[in-house]
Amino acid sequence: MKLEGKVVVAQGGGPTAVINQSLVGAVLESRKFTQVTKVYGAINGVSGIINENFIDLTQETTHNLEQVAITPSSALFSTRDKPDEKYCQEIFKVLKAHDVRYFFYIGGNDSADTVRIVNEQAESSDYEFRAIHIPKTIDNDLMANDHTPGYGSAAKFVADAFIGINLDNRALPGVHIGVVMGRNAGFLTAASSIAQKYPDDGPHLIYLPERPFDLDKFLQSVKEVYEKYGRCLVAVSEGIRDKDGVPIVTKLRKNKETDAHGNVQLSGTGALGDLLSEIVKKNLGIKRVRSDTFGYLQRSFFGCVSDVDQHEAREVGEKAAQFAIWHNIDGSITIHRTGYYSVDYKLSPLKDVAAKTKTMPDEFINEAGDNVTDAFKHYLMPLLGTNVSSAHRLRAPRVPKILHKEL
Amino acid sequence: MKLEGKVVVAQGGGPTAVINQSLVGAVLESRKFTQVTKVYGAINGVSGIINENFIDLTQETTHNLEQVAITPSSALFSTRDKPDEKYCQEIFKVLKAHDVRYFFYIGGNDSADTVRIVNEQAESSDYEFRAIHIPKTIDNDLMANDHTPGYGSAAKFVADAFIGINLDNRALPGVHIGVVMGRNAGFLTAASSIAQKYPDDGPHLIYLPERPFDLDKFLQSVKEVYEKYGRCLVAVSEGIRDKDGVPIVTKLRKNKETDAHGNVQLSGTGALGDLLSEIVKKNLGIKRVRSDTFGYLQRSFFGCVSDVDQHEAREVGEKAAQFAIWHNIDGSITIHRTGYYSVDYKLSPLKDVAAKTKTMPDEFINEAGDNVTDAFKHYLMPLLGTNVSSAHRLRAPRVPKILHKEL
Repeated sequence: MKLEGKVVVAQGGGPTAVINQSLVGAVLESRKFTQVTKVYGAINGVSGIINENFIDLTQETTHNLEQVAITPSSALFSTRDKPDEKYCQEIFKVLKAHDVRYFFYIGGNDSADTVRIVNEQAESSDYEFRAIHIPKTIDNDLMANDHTPGYGSAAKFVADAFIGINLDNRALPGVHIGVVMGRNAGFLTAASSIAQKYPDDGPHLIYLPERPFDLDKFLQSVKEVYEKYGRCLVAVSEGIRDKDGVPIVTKLRKNKETDAHGNVQLSGTGALGDLLSEIVKKNLGIKRVRSDTFGYLQRSFFGCVSDVDQHEAREVGEKAAQFAIWHNIDGSITIHRTGYYSVDYKLSPLKDVAAKTKTMPDEFINEAGDNVTDAFKHYLMPLLGTNVSSAHRLRAPRVPKILHKEL
Repeated sequence: MKLEGKVVVAQGGGPTAVINQSLVGAVLESRKFTQVTKVYGAINGVSGIINENFIDLTQETTHNLEQVAITPSSALFSTRDKPDEKYCQEIFKVLKAHDVRYFFYIGGNDSADTVRIVNEQAESSDYEFRAIHIPKTIDNDLMANDHTPGYGSAAKFVADAFIGINLDNRALPGVHIGVVMGRNAGFLTAASSIAQKYPDDGPHLIYLPERPFDLDKFLQSVKEVYEKYGRCLVAVSEGIRDKDGVPIVTKLRKNKETDAHGNVQLSGTGALGDLLSEIVKKNLGIKRVRSDTFGYLQRSFFGCVSDVDQHEAREVGEKAAQFAIWHNIDGSITIHRTGYYSVDYKLSPLKDVAAKTKTMPDEFINEAGDNVTDAFKHYLMPLLGTNVSSAHRLRAPRVPKILHKEL
């Protein structure tokens, strides 16, 4: 029995460079089915549903959809709304009124949880309805997935940024601290390790939320690296915390000497980088200390995209439509690595993904907790796509000195 | 009479994405001349000369030089040293000892001034010597040049960043402040205007060092834009100052409520963006206010390069060798626009470029002093290269509401 009705696609949470690939994959695939009467896009995620803010995507040309697919950030806009039961009842009232039978929600673990709640409500109200979660997050923190669409491109951004900063730091030496997104999972910060090409290349130290951050140990490590190389490049996750789980940015702000920023969000401010820089300057007496906070650039910069990530983001969108419309089943699309490098997609139970957070496994972090392992680099490399960046150095020999006698 | 001797190439000041194109252009062209006995690279600019830190670039393969050419940041490293007369005497002692007759210095207006001083010293000491300044700076602030190598690629970075942030800001609305490098000249910040594609696209406000920054006017303008679009994207130069010339970052820090950062450098800290965000939050009561400081990413990010910039950076390096070795004359290579879009290169007197700063001409800035003109965009467009980014939107029509009556 074919389930006839409309499709609604929506996007939730933080945008990524390839989130519109998933949108376009779901839309184009849905438009092929005769039982699909219309394909709607909800504006601003679930809040667009309760407000009946739909656009009719069957009136989009395939060509324009393809142009939107290569444009970063959520073309249907986003929301941070997290529906409760009452919110869900509103969602259903609207979906029923518009005869919507298929709902595809592109988002992270919060969005997966939304889909789970909406699905439960559909079942309990006997409304014939398919809802599928399509994965995306630059944080790469979804359970049941080898990795998530959006991560590869953001990781490429972080890698390209650190390749450049490492060269800059060699040319004009000092301490440089790069702050990367990732509240609970260090995958994105760990991508900085791709810049470690030559033996003295940074980042020399990588701090992840998975390991407690010890300020004294940090200062000691920076000192050692600086003494060895005359410079030190550090990659820090915005979510680093101390052994009691207190975020370092909160802790440093409590210090009267450095207390400054009135806000508490981790992204969209340079606070953590600036505070760590101050501490390095004061304690180690190093003059040239700089920090860069990558901020929103890492999730929406135009043109820094992994082609592998692009392909996979497209496919998870297509697979959502296929599972829901051909096979009439609910769930979360998950990515599974089947070779090096090949993947396949499954439909996993929503409860396996919803509201859970995957963090870096132990084998990806070195023993000292201040760098990654080769196993992580091996894991990451194919996700960066086929056009991985690589810096080159001059290798010309030194010329013997004439005036200054060499030792 | 051919002047026989060695060539020394060096790089000074802040790195750019294409500075190694100029290096490689000068090296490969120099290696073709029979009167050139060796081509050396000085490590860390002029400080490499006085310390006799040379590498022998005649031992580099052409292939590796081409790989280095496409790698960002100064391959010979850099320096902030600014030679005085005594320093210059040291330079000459070394150059004479190594029989160096040609000196090519790739850098900004400070480096041009170094070349000028070195040249004067050569003349007064009767040492037969050619010194040429090769232009580079992401700030685009060299006199006598239509624009400078390094600017196009950095401008492309800023444009791509704002295209992405504009989309992000549409998806999750609020106020976003992007802080761009440029202490005295606003050219790089102005490149953010390329993101203004659709009528409501940001940056809605662009603040440059060329116009006094008025905090009250700023808050009023942000309020107006926010009321109109429900969001506001602002591009700010790190060098903005008030009507008395006091940098805004210094001024805001003096305010006890926001005083925080102990350092005074403009780049390598998120201070200005964070302070402006605080003020918007406090005064306008807008909750979601974020800032991004582009920092070092804009001058050394791997892979964000304008091909036009790449070609020109290569050519100014080649031209330096040609002028010095074929024609036996000194000066600064300058770029002149001859059509739309074509350029030619001249050798200009060093005094026309050295230690001077070009700022945005009046016709590039709107009357209110908070945006750029079409004349600026026309000027900038060809410098971004042949692969200019462009965002695309969904254009599907709204679906009539069923439950919520439309007005």
